[in-house]
Amino acid sequence: MLYIVGLGLGDERDITVRGLDAVRRCAKVYMEAYTSLLSLGLDPASLANLEKMYGKEITVADREMVEERADQMLSEAAEADVAFLVVGDPFGATTHTDLVVRAKNMGVEVKVIHNASVINAIGVCGLQLYRYGETISIPFFTETWRPDSFYEKIQNSRRLGLHTLCLLDIRVKEPTLESLCSRRSLVDAEVELHDRLVERVGEVGLLLGNGETVGDTFFSGRQSLLRCDELRIVLLATLKMRKELVVDDRSWDPTSSSP
Amino acid sequence: MLYIVGLGLGDERDITVRGLDAVRRCAKVYMEAYTSLLSLGLDPASLANLEKMYGKEITVADREMVEERADQMLSEAAEADVAFLVVGDPFGATTHTDLVVRAKNMGVEVKVIHNASVINAIGVCGLQLYRYGETISIPFFTETWRPDSFYEKIQNSRRLGLHTLCLLDIRVKEPTLESLCSRRSLVDAEVELHDRLVERVGEVGLLLGNGETVGDTFFSGRQSLLRCDELRIVLLATLKMRKELVVDDRSWDPTSSSP
Repeated sequence: MLYIVGLGLGDERDITVRGLDAVRRCAKVYMEAYTSLLSLGLDPASLANLEKMYGKEITVADREMVEERADQMLSEAAEADVAFLVVGDPFGATTHTDLVVRAKNMGVEVKVIHNASVINAIGVCGLQLYRYGETISIPFFTETWRPDSFYEKIQNSRRLGLHTLCLLDIRVKEPTLESLCSRRSLVDAEVELHDRLVERVGEVGLLLGNGETVGDTFFSGRQSLLRCDELRIVLLATLKMRKELVVDDRSWDPTSSSP
Repeated sequence: MLYIVGLGLGDERDITVRGLDAVRRCAKVYMEAYTSLLSLGLDPASLANLEKMYGKEITVADREMVEERADQMLSEAAEADVAFLVVGDPFGATTHTDLVVRAKNMGVEVKVIHNASVINAIGVCGLQLYRYGETISIPFFTETWRPDSFYEKIQNSRRLGLHTLCLLDIRVKEPTLESLCSRRSLVDAEVELHDRLVERVGEVGLLLGNGETVGDTFFSGRQSLLRCDELRIVLLATLKMRKELVVDDRSWDPTSSSP
């Protein structure tokens, strides 16, 4: 059996009791670490917190592991109970849908254990979840690749009077142009800093903006939860503030962030 | 301190470890029971399961309690730790945003503990969450009130090539026209049966449909998770199936529900 277990948005205590029971039953535990990262990071100390609470050794699964060597994990799941931990909810990323399809094709049973995702937890900001349009992804900019197609989607939602949640890509151990050409294995790439996320969104807004507002548009990345209002990027939350807002300890006045 | 604790979509074991710790710390525990109901229902046996696991007596808070007598609960929270349990995530319903505003006005501290909501858990159906447009509510039909305004919103999303999640109102102890006129207290009203939900959606689709499809539109109610495809209402899940699909034990082939 493969258990795909959502961890929610905070730390090791945001797993559900159902999820914790499943993890403790499993012979092997993997932690997905490329579509998202826990707020607490994946340094050895943070990982040790997870391992201590779950009572299991955890194998970190990077992109190569999940996409190229998933069959190994699924073979293990055919023989014993295996847990695959995912930050947020298991089906925020299509990668995990692909994993389920592979499992079905191999005859491996799958159980999904849901948890909070930024797609619902964004409700804590005070804007009604029913008034969000299409969720968009904003890619990581490089010197030669600076796409702006997401901007039209924000405008579509604005025309319907809807807010937009913008997910900011992170970049962790992804293939570079060189590694793809030479078919070498994946290499570590820099993790984008918060300041650069702001810069990226601002750049596209300023390049494409023709006076039209993109207010009430929320940006969520690994370390950020931003508000873009009339082409000014307003920082709603740094890493610390994000924890306060989205997770548990927070200081928030919904009246100030209502539309 | 007022803890607003999401319970997720299943039963007592879908609470997070963080949520369970908070509930066990609290002097008083309320269970919100009018914007949504747990799959397991709120009969005495089910409530006893919650109380047993949480180790606390639970007071069921109906609409009147939440909307009219919230100040009593907030006064208690000013003096001691109080938990307010909500099915799904705390901010799926604007009612709970209002509760936070009231708490702030009274100087009562609030902590929010997130959990899975149908807004993210719908990802289990295999359709990408980033491709959903505005979430809509379909009201409970009466003999004299059969609104159809939600249909235009489905069409708006369809034009942008987006799926739509439709939330089906339930009707539990709401005011009737008579009770509102006479200012009597709220009365119990029938809980809508699954067959009638199908009928309600189908009626509006057939009345307004002009051959345009509303495919890839998902319907979620207390006991249902439906798919509406080309004006045919396709039942994806009964109560039992919904548990399998959305919660834990499920038999699901994502390849068959992809767009």
